[in-house]
Amino acid sequence: MILFRQALRFTSRLPFICGRCRTYSAQVGSVERVISAFRSVSGDEGVSVGSAVREQHGRDESVHICRPPDVVVFPRSVEEVSALAKICHHHQLPMIPFGTGTGLEGGVGALKGGVCFSLRKMEQVLDLHQEDFDVTVEPGVTRKGLNSYLRDTGLWFPVDPGADASLCGMAATSASGTNAVRYGTMRENVLNLEVVLADGTVLHTAGKGRRPRKTSAGYNLTNLFVGSEGTLGIITKATLRLYGIPESMVSAVCSFPSVQSAVDSTVQILQAGVSIARIEFLDDVMINACNRFNNLSYAVTPTLFLEFHGSSKSMQEQVSITEEITRDNGGSDFAWAEDEETRGRLWKARHDAWYAALALRPGCKAYSTDVCVPISRLPQIIVETKEDLIRNNITGPIAGHVGDGNFHCLIVLDPNDPDEVQRVHSFTERLARRALAMDGTCTGEHGIGLGKRALLREEVGPSAIEVMLGLKASLDPKNLMNPGKVKGWVSRVPSHFRSPCCTR
Amino acid sequence: MILFRQALRFTSRLPFICGRCRTYSAQVGSVERVISAFRSVSGDEGVSVGSAVREQHGRDESVHICRPPDVVVFPRSVEEVSALAKICHHHQLPMIPFGTGTGLEGGVGALKGGVCFSLRKMEQVLDLHQEDFDVTVEPGVTRKGLNSYLRDTGLWFPVDPGADASLCGMAATSASGTNAVRYGTMRENVLNLEVVLADGTVLHTAGKGRRPRKTSAGYNLTNLFVGSEGTLGIITKATLRLYGIPESMVSAVCSFPSVQSAVDSTVQILQAGVSIARIEFLDDVMINACNRFNNLSYAVTPTLFLEFHGSSKSMQEQVSITEEITRDNGGSDFAWAEDEETRGRLWKARHDAWYAALALRPGCKAYSTDVCVPISRLPQIIVETKEDLIRNNITGPIAGHVGDGNFHCLIVLDPNDPDEVQRVHSFTERLARRALAMDGTCTGEHGIGLGKRALLREEVGPSAIEVMLGLKASLDPKNLMNPGKVKGWVSRVPSHFRSPCCTR
Repeated sequence: MILFRQALRFTSRLPFICGRCRTYSAQVGSVERVISAFRSVSGDEGVSVGSAVREQHGRDESVHICRPPDVVVFPRSVEEVSALAKICHHHQLPMIPFGTGTGLEGGVGALKGGVCFSLRKMEQVLDLHQEDFDVTVEPGVTRKGLNSYLRDTGLWFPVDPGADASLCGMAATSASGTNAVRYGTMRENVLNLEVVLADGTVLHTAGKGRRPRKTSAGYNLTNLFVGSEGTLGIITKATLRLYGIPESMVSAVCSFPSVQSAVDSTVQILQAGVSIARIEFLDDVMINACNRFNNLSYAVTPTLFLEFHGSSKSMQEQVSITEEITRDNGGSDFAWAEDEETRGRLWKARHDAWYAALALRPGCKAYSTDVCVPISRLPQIIVETKEDLIRNNITGPIAGHVGDGNFHCLIVLDPNDPDEVQRVHSFTERLARRALAMDGTCTGEHGIGLGKRALLREEVGPSAIEVMLGLKASLDPKNLMNPGKVKGWVSRVPSHFRSPCCTR
Repeated sequence: MILFRQALRFTSRLPFICGRCRTYSAQVGSVERVISAFRSVSGDEGVSVGSAVREQHGRDESVHICRPPDVVVFPRSVEEVSALAKICHHHQLPMIPFGTGTGLEGGVGALKGGVCFSLRKMEQVLDLHQEDFDVTVEPGVTRKGLNSYLRDTGLWFPVDPGADASLCGMAATSASGTNAVRYGTMRENVLNLEVVLADGTVLHTAGKGRRPRKTSAGYNLTNLFVGSEGTLGIITKATLRLYGIPESMVSAVCSFPSVQSAVDSTVQILQAGVSIARIEFLDDVMINACNRFNNLSYAVTPTLFLEFHGSSKSMQEQVSITEEITRDNGGSDFAWAEDEETRGRLWKARHDAWYAALALRPGCKAYSTDVCVPISRLPQIIVETKEDLIRNNITGPIAGHVGDGNFHCLIVLDPNDPDEVQRVHSFTERLARRALAMDGTCTGEHGIGLGKRALLREEVGPSAIEVMLGLKASLDPKNLMNPGKVKGWVSRVPSHFRSPCCTR
């Protein structure tokens, strides 16, 4: 009974309020009718208005405050997603897709309330084609889940953002991570998507069931939805490229006297055509944190962690070339490992970076920035950023996918200290603008979400924003898909997003 | 004087006619005013209405009939392209971008007349960043031109469709070719585009001057324009990824008893992680044609041509793994070469395939089909296609980028024989539908152009066509950019493409 009253309290404002401007509207129906319609599609257990469930679906792993939806639905199939979307469309209710909640820019926050589509019950791995190196997954399937499923096939999906994220969520945010330098990001590894549009239409971006490795047929809808962060539709299936598991993997670590020498080594390793799969940079602060967290004794200097993928015989040569390049650039303490256990130990330091950073200030929270610049600009931006961190008394060890020019400050802050929060906010904006001034981007892999809406406009310019808004209006004229994100890219509300009540 | 009269004759219908429905409109100005406006932007030598120039710009290398524009303009800068586009937009004149005219699906045909933007005078290589592995080029720069420019840098641009095409044109058609199995297609290798939209707006798809290797910032406009075939805007600059020239390249050739065994070898080579850069299939008819054309003596059976890129030391191992795989699949006559001269001789057979096919029937024309299927379906589709060719008495040797599942029939036909033209037309449609029935695409790299408009609808389905039309309407509401191509994707004219006169 308490739950029921609570449900009514939380949902009473839902169907009476315009999903866009939050003013009352006489056009929409009653609470009961909407909830009942949802339940007729997904059953009682497929609809939740409980506060704990809603709060759980209003936040990701970032420091953005929780913005819970009014209702959470748990569809079990694309047909249910489509039917639920049609109800939302009819009642003009915002729709926010939710995978695993491992995003880092607040992309799942229900800024305008509305309905969260939690997709975890759609968890089938479908249509594995081993000979064709492709597989289709539902949105409840995670990266580790897929690789576990593939264990005995000799294949794997290499894109690795660190978190065990939903693969469809990774597509939605154009995720990448440590392996991108060799295998690319989600942009290069999604062959087809099934998407439910705002009005419930089911779209197959490359045509239903199609999975050629390349195509020139019509506009590239697949890559329009990859990185669209739920603002154009709900991804309900992704067809992905797979790769043969390399015969051999060798890892190495090397210390450098300066950021410049580590980056110079990176450029030369890439130019030499070494079969590098990961090339990760950790600054002295990060290495120090890793040493303390994992009881290690790496030299506290800029450091590269590397991984080579290829045939057993070629590994020795790859390692030799790399060692020679690093030595020529002043690198030292070069150590490499082939067996899985030693490799695992070596990479543990890198994988634990987030927790190592957190351990620097127990009780605090971590926030990861995410900029990407042309590789040659890395030394300057990292040096300037480190000076900025020191000047503003911010704890922010640096780790980065240096082969792509992408790096993160893992900022550890006390969220209850408004002064520190403000200093961190100002720092992250300065960092993003520094990247923009160096021909780079304010986000290499985390997405725009809530945190970078203003920065996007600075990055791409007004013409590109206008084009993006036009595309959004074309696909979602009522602005129901994850609203508040795209509209936040402009300071004014464009006319095509205004509903009748919004124009008052 | 003759030229002037001729000009008037050719252009007299131009500014008085609606660019979409070809009916007269009182809204637009006079001949003299439009031509004069063009000349005020690009000078007398930058505007041509001569019939030879117009005809040269109304065709590509396909068998589609020439559809000349009314005027050809030769802008020298993005500012000129923008100013010319504004004039066209004001007068509602169709605009068709033209690079080198090496397309294969009639994409440059001026179906509705209008203004051809020949971009050959914009031929600068701009902003080479060696350390960052990127370069920006204008649309007059060709693939070979860029690689010649890069000769002393240790870098190259590997996407190789065969023709010496304009790089911006390659972006517009999402081209690829022999190296795609290792280096990807244009989709994976364009970092940023400068585009002039229908109303003259200059758009930078990833923001002006930006060139990070990856980004998650907003919608992926770059890959919306890659493959848009001039229907959304005119590409005036492309920022491209470059690669280090591999230390060593080794080529090999191997004969097989069947298509199946050649394809099985391909799958196993890919799965073994061999550093393969090209893996090209030629059927028995193609090999026979090559033997005759180049005075060679390859066994007349299905054949693979391969190329490995990597370090010198690793080459021996790569070749050994490959030789073992091919031998296990019944391959024979395995021959490999490392020195440039022998490699050149070996690849000459593959590169001359087009001319070797043409030489089978002197005086005839060649037409290249272009389908792509998941690799496992290649044996079946190739066998069925060969039976179809024989049954219908069509000369069509097969060559393909088998690592991507992409192949071509190089059909040689007499264009003056209507019965043969009809047989070839029916054959190509059957071939495309065979690819569609096997989860594939009707075009892997040539694009939709004129030839495959109906097939695209079958491939992606009505929902995707509606979305594509919506995107087109959003970016080019007057349907002025290369008109007749996108609109041809539907049988009816959607309302948002109708101009005032079209609605009569």
